[in-house]
Amino acid sequence: MIDKKIKKSNERCALQEILSIIGGKWSMSIIYALFPGTRRFSELERLIPNINTRMLVKELKNMEANGIVSRKVFATVPPTVEYTLTTKGEKLEPIINELHKWGLEYVN
Amino acid sequence: MIDKKIKKSNERCALQEILSIIGGKWSMSIIYALFPGTRRFSELERLIPNINTRMLVKELKNMEANGIVSRKVFATVPPTVEYTLTTKGEKLEPIINELHKWGLEYVN
Repeated sequence: MIDKKIKKSNERCALQEILSIIGGKWSMSIIYALFPGTRRFSELERLIPNINTRMLVKELKNMEANGIVSRKVFATVPPTVEYTLTTKGEKLEPIINELHKWGLEYVN
Repeated sequence: MIDKKIKKSNERCALQEILSIIGGKWSMSIIYALFPGTRRFSELERLIPNINTRMLVKELKNMEANGIVSRKVFATVPPTVEYTLTTKGEKLEPIINELHKWGLEYVN
């Protein structure tokens, strides 16, 4: 009984940990924009309406730190920066798609 | 092409709308605690560690407004308040379970 309660409690903490990774205002939109494949910073900026440069930089930095995206810099002038989902990030695809379907059915 | 861009843009807005409903710090934990069935307010308070009464009231109010939970008050002394997931809320069960599995595999 106590074990079960601790397990339950850990499960909810896991959910909060997950939300801290993908629950930011823009994270899911960025992940969604990366599903088709690698994108340049400028492409992401164009693809995600209403996000500003500072926010996009900040979210991508968080996502990189959380192992959701990988970042590659090319020594061009000006430098080209590309972002790709890691395996951890890719595994979110079916879940975010399901969430999206839920939204289409139930939100408005 | 333009249609496709608009569609994409709407899809991302849908994701942000969804997040505004279930992306709060506690919403998923509350939904999770309601999966097995109806709970009293006091049960939810006990089941969700670290949440305070004011936050739980606020989140449940939001979730009720968003049609995720329904609220039933019984005229006992003191009043008993029970919360149940609506169909819209129940449909999140497989998604939150998948998200949870993802977390167990990839988050620490």
